[in-house]
Amino acid sequence: MKTRAAVAFAANQPLEIVELDLEGPKAGEVLVEIMATGVCHTDAYTLEGKDSEGIFPSVLGHEGAGIVREVGAGVTSVKVGDHVIPLYTPECRQCKSCLSQKTNLCTHIRATQGKGVMPDGTSRFSYKGQTIYHYMGCSTFSNFTVLPEIAVAKVDPAAPFDKICYIGCGVTTGIGAVIWTAKVEPGANVVVFGLGGIGLNVIQGARMAGADKIIGVDINPGKEAMARAFGMTHFVNPKVVGNDKVVETLVALTDGGADYSFDCTGNTDVMRQALECCHRGWGESIIIGVAEAGKEISTRPFQLVTGRVWKGSAFGGARGRTDVPKIVDWYMNKKINIDDLITHVLPLEKINDAFDLMHEGKSIRTVIRF
Amino acid sequence: MKTRAAVAFAANQPLEIVELDLEGPKAGEVLVEIMATGVCHTDAYTLEGKDSEGIFPSVLGHEGAGIVREVGAGVTSVKVGDHVIPLYTPECRQCKSCLSQKTNLCTHIRATQGKGVMPDGTSRFSYKGQTIYHYMGCSTFSNFTVLPEIAVAKVDPAAPFDKICYIGCGVTTGIGAVIWTAKVEPGANVVVFGLGGIGLNVIQGARMAGADKIIGVDINPGKEAMARAFGMTHFVNPKVVGNDKVVETLVALTDGGADYSFDCTGNTDVMRQALECCHRGWGESIIIGVAEAGKEISTRPFQLVTGRVWKGSAFGGARGRTDVPKIVDWYMNKKINIDDLITHVLPLEKINDAFDLMHEGKSIRTVIRF
Repeated sequence: MKTRAAVAFAANQPLEIVELDLEGPKAGEVLVEIMATGVCHTDAYTLEGKDSEGIFPSVLGHEGAGIVREVGAGVTSVKVGDHVIPLYTPECRQCKSCLSQKTNLCTHIRATQGKGVMPDGTSRFSYKGQTIYHYMGCSTFSNFTVLPEIAVAKVDPAAPFDKICYIGCGVTTGIGAVIWTAKVEPGANVVVFGLGGIGLNVIQGARMAGADKIIGVDINPGKEAMARAFGMTHFVNPKVVGNDKVVETLVALTDGGADYSFDCTGNTDVMRQALECCHRGWGESIIIGVAEAGKEISTRPFQLVTGRVWKGSAFGGARGRTDVPKIVDWYMNKKINIDDLITHVLPLEKINDAFDLMHEGKSIRTVIRF
Repeated sequence: MKTRAAVAFAANQPLEIVELDLEGPKAGEVLVEIMATGVCHTDAYTLEGKDSEGIFPSVLGHEGAGIVREVGAGVTSVKVGDHVIPLYTPECRQCKSCLSQKTNLCTHIRATQGKGVMPDGTSRFSYKGQTIYHYMGCSTFSNFTVLPEIAVAKVDPAAPFDKICYIGCGVTTGIGAVIWTAKVEPGANVVVFGLGGIGLNVIQGARMAGADKIIGVDINPGKEAMARAFGMTHFVNPKVVGNDKVVETLVALTDGGADYSFDCTGNTDVMRQALECCHRGWGESIIIGVAEAGKEISTRPFQLVTGRVWKGSAFGGARGRTDVPKIVDWYMNKKINIDDLITHVLPLEKINDAFDLMHEGKSIRTVIRF
């Protein structure tokens, strides 16, 4: 079949809207009509050639929502017509990782996913006979895409695609880090570094979990109002208090330190501040942001010996097929706000504008509607 | 009253055995006759001037056992004749830290303890009218010492002082890191870096907790036999496999990485190996060793984002008054072995020999018997 898609033919070039050939789903796979997709920083990171494992030509996009249009042999968990969110972190429920019950990082298809192909080692996309690779196992910048059955979450069919697509990455990453990775409890004090899309979702996750103080840290005072609307109770601007005073300011605000802190900046110096503002004895710092290649985090081991814990979170610690449908329900029940985070909606033809809006800091999330 | 003690008059000088004046216990304090004390690396660290907060002249020693000989006003939890282990990490059961139920790092007397004085701000020790300071709130290199009531653990009176004194620091630090900090579960794979006294106690803690593989890592092959006797199942020598192959060797031995790793070396490069040999998704690395002043730990944040956890442990996460008596019982019930770790017993007059034995690598633990 044919599908209209935005193709990244090479790094640092605009995406090109072309018509691709798409093979139908093989055994264990499903064909999904993507109805909407978010454009995420990770797509930009790959497009800019910063991801050393980025593969071109490929169909980027990993934050989508759509409808199952065809299922391959042996598919039992979804059927034609089901509404689904593609999962770049699948959930096979039978690999060592899934069975450990300690992590969401299913390893069942990791090797092939990292190579831009389906589990059988081939791509379903081609253009004029040339192979076009999959991306993060999703490739949602295509009107139709093929995914392994274990990499789609079946969700409430009443939910609007152009909102819940954001649950495919950003919303889950932020809210999940609070709920599943940190397991923030009511009454906890929380500090959030970086008030972009992920940080705002951490904030609303912390509010949902019943946190007391929810302190946001950002060098841009323009982020304060929206963050307060999402649940932030205090704002600290490092440019106002002085960057070398951030930790002590936060420790003072929290009577000794944060119970939980979250880095949503990707800046390794900020990651250190996030750890060191934690409470002696039990404070936990969770790294969400993706650092530049080659950058490292550092601290004195004394910080850990005196009880702080350094962790990270990928896809919010969410088990895709189990937890993503819950977040969709939370959105439908108005427990969380997604609408105000989607600042722009564009057609596929304007997808390059979405990257421009991101780089210019004008958008929180731009959604492409097919 | 008078007490015979080994006094550190200044850094980098041998201890001097002198007779000190000792004031009796004030309100909330107890007088303890120390019957035996271990000599620990931390005492040497302070004596060598490496601890920037070290205070001289002082009575070092923090790993003792003895008998309560007098109690100050208001003391209710112990009485004259009770056998006790002094606690450099006290347990007041009413400060924010104790009440958090998340840490053993009681802060009730931290400020004064760090200044070498009792909670009222004064020292009980003096020599010819000159103040001699307390050390870690214990000063067990003295035949008699004064401690706050919250800093003694009442233990089984049948237990031999010259064995259980080691529970005052080393045994608890190692076994506790496994049981209370990491909470190692049966079937887990454990890697232990550094097979000195702490490492051997981590090993016997892991055995007690039902670990499957218990892999020891040390550059000294002479450590292997004793470690195997304590429960080590596999030995890796970085000098044999190559220091740059340590992580991959351990990952291969554990089918993907350690469930828990412990650094007992104090070397920050080893701490990094300990983190990076952990299993993707859930492996936790616990820093026990004390690093040189100014040294920092580093890693790529990706190590944490993909599910590894970096923690530390102080006094094994043990609540002193609650948990130390349990460890004494475990020793009495032969669940743990202390006897084979105490390689030398000396009288107080020979205490400087204990430091020499330690530096020459000839002892695991030397105990001073009064």
